[in-house]
Amino acid sequence: MSFELNWGVIGPGRIASTFINDLLHSHDTLRKDVTSKKIRHKLVAIASSSSVERARKFKEDSINEASDDGIKCYGSYNEIFNDPKVDILYIATPNLNHYQLCFDALSHGKNVLMEKPFTINYKQAEILAKLAKDKHLFLMEAYWTKFLPVYREVYDLLFSHDKSPIGEIKRVVSDLSFTFPRDDPGMERIYDPSLGGGVTLDIGIYSMYWPLGFLDKDCQLTFPDIAASANMADTGVDISTAVILKYNENNTLGIATCSGFFDNHSHGVVINGTKGRIEVDDSCVPSEYWVYDEKNEPLIHKRFNYNGRGMFFEADHVADCLARGLKESPLHTLSHTIRMAKILDTVRKQVGTIYPESLESTETSKTK
Amino acid sequence: MSFELNWGVIGPGRIASTFINDLLHSHDTLRKDVTSKKIRHKLVAIASSSSVERARKFKEDSINEASDDGIKCYGSYNEIFNDPKVDILYIATPNLNHYQLCFDALSHGKNVLMEKPFTINYKQAEILAKLAKDKHLFLMEAYWTKFLPVYREVYDLLFSHDKSPIGEIKRVVSDLSFTFPRDDPGMERIYDPSLGGGVTLDIGIYSMYWPLGFLDKDCQLTFPDIAASANMADTGVDISTAVILKYNENNTLGIATCSGFFDNHSHGVVINGTKGRIEVDDSCVPSEYWVYDEKNEPLIHKRFNYNGRGMFFEADHVADCLARGLKESPLHTLSHTIRMAKILDTVRKQVGTIYPESLESTETSKTK
Repeated sequence: MSFELNWGVIGPGRIASTFINDLLHSHDTLRKDVTSKKIRHKLVAIASSSSVERARKFKEDSINEASDDGIKCYGSYNEIFNDPKVDILYIATPNLNHYQLCFDALSHGKNVLMEKPFTINYKQAEILAKLAKDKHLFLMEAYWTKFLPVYREVYDLLFSHDKSPIGEIKRVVSDLSFTFPRDDPGMERIYDPSLGGGVTLDIGIYSMYWPLGFLDKDCQLTFPDIAASANMADTGVDISTAVILKYNENNTLGIATCSGFFDNHSHGVVINGTKGRIEVDDSCVPSEYWVYDEKNEPLIHKRFNYNGRGMFFEADHVADCLARGLKESPLHTLSHTIRMAKILDTVRKQVGTIYPESLESTETSKTK
Repeated sequence: MSFELNWGVIGPGRIASTFINDLLHSHDTLRKDVTSKKIRHKLVAIASSSSVERARKFKEDSINEASDDGIKCYGSYNEIFNDPKVDILYIATPNLNHYQLCFDALSHGKNVLMEKPFTINYKQAEILAKLAKDKHLFLMEAYWTKFLPVYREVYDLLFSHDKSPIGEIKRVVSDLSFTFPRDDPGMERIYDPSLGGGVTLDIGIYSMYWPLGFLDKDCQLTFPDIAASANMADTGVDISTAVILKYNENNTLGIATCSGFFDNHSHGVVINGTKGRIEVDDSCVPSEYWVYDEKNEPLIHKRFNYNGRGMFFEADHVADCLARGLKESPLHTLSHTIRMAKILDTVRKQVGTIYPESLESTETSKTK
């Protein structure tokens, strides 16, 4: 028995290339369902809104496939929405049209894996989640970090045993920072409010998902008290941000930071417990973690080497969900996505990153 | 030529014992002015408000001195204030009476080294600074961390050369956390609002002085925007706190945290620059630092071993100031202390730690 998942891609860019090549071509031994052929991934269509040539160029330049592979290239989104071969659409366009495209894809009956930020705001996220539910379609935010082995093992250490090695979790401190030079044309998206810019929606999400996922793992606590502050770029978006999430029920604090001023090579995440701590090398692409007891003695140190960027872990999880008939990931629920969208809204409001009204709108163009 | 400084101690407790033994008995080679006999420290008097026996017990149990040393023991503060042999008073009592005692000491013409927290609030700090100025007396907050070799070297690396090894400083992240068990009677001061409790005034100060000292080193910037949040103990004081200091002029962020839930053995301080970072092992008693370039290559790693707790660095600095006739430390100015007091007030207000009105009062008992 084997389950074959046929992918369509919207937004043929760098991240789509990494994702698709990862899921199609990695033979990593950690992909048990794929190496055992229980799950097979196939790329069946690519769509660019600008021209069919752009889709073709992406296929030729970026996807490591044979030429007569049967991958359809489209110069409009409508064509890929109506392609019956496409089981699931991976949407990886710029932030500003996430909402409309996901709305259209779901309206056409397609399952969707939606790149982050899921939407521009909380209201849009809620509408999409409801639409997917109404249409009985699978929808997930592409927060791929959660499916990497470091995240899963740390999560299991803390929550799947009788006793956590670090006692009760009291604080999660997390950072993701990169140098985003103001004069680099490739960094335009970060600085432009009309593209949904600012570091919070770009890299802050990775940083903030650790406190959210470990302090309020099932999104069952009251919405946290939030205190945020940011240095602002001259374009009016946040360029270095710090966020404190305070949970009253379990008396914990999350501190998430991100900055466009420097590359942060320090530990990306520190989870402090009453009896020790866990450190993770990176909040976005973790490959290594350390567990220390309360006397600072090392208990565990593990490092994972996997092929490519490891985005296949997420893709395999999606395939597994669809094979099981699930409409929502049990690991990364829409509750998480909606909660994060609400946190992001609050942070943006507090620090003063304002987007044009058109981006914030929940109105959609008519769709078939 | 030699300068001898005669110390009097008010508040004979643990910290006073460490401080006095450090300054009297360490022959550390890093104490050049002391080992060369340019500076000599002498303890001449100890005062306890409760009884002369308590002062004597402190002398016998805690101070490593010969018996016929001429150290006077007093059962009242008035006696030590009027002892003409005392050049400077080291005040190390519980927080709640710092203001009154420092006011009295200055009023009696004594120089003062005042333990932290300097006062309960900003207004009290301003009054004391003005009184010391009016009376031409030396007054300094005992923020001893600033005189330790790690702090001084890191400071010099960043500010005393043409070029900082980490480029422009953009962020300082700093933590100081300890386990303060709720049921430990020795931890009463932390939990009791009537004693000026809460972690912010106890350990948060150490954490917050790094952003203040490195992002606004001369206290010349506009007062920072502050966003703070805390988990609260059932007694109404903060027990785990996070503070964001935002400086608009230099586009920097400081993130200072402290918690009473766990011992934090992670790096105490990380200073992020545009071209690298500096990590310090501890924000309170640093003994080690690392400098990394923007590619995460180590540039410098230094470790200092010194006698005892190294509180003598502070004492020697005080003696040096007095020998030079200074009424204020050029390294740890009263501007720093007043700025910190204002930051602490703002943090307490935001997180909701409220002290009794009597502690906040700027009124003093009449003094001679």
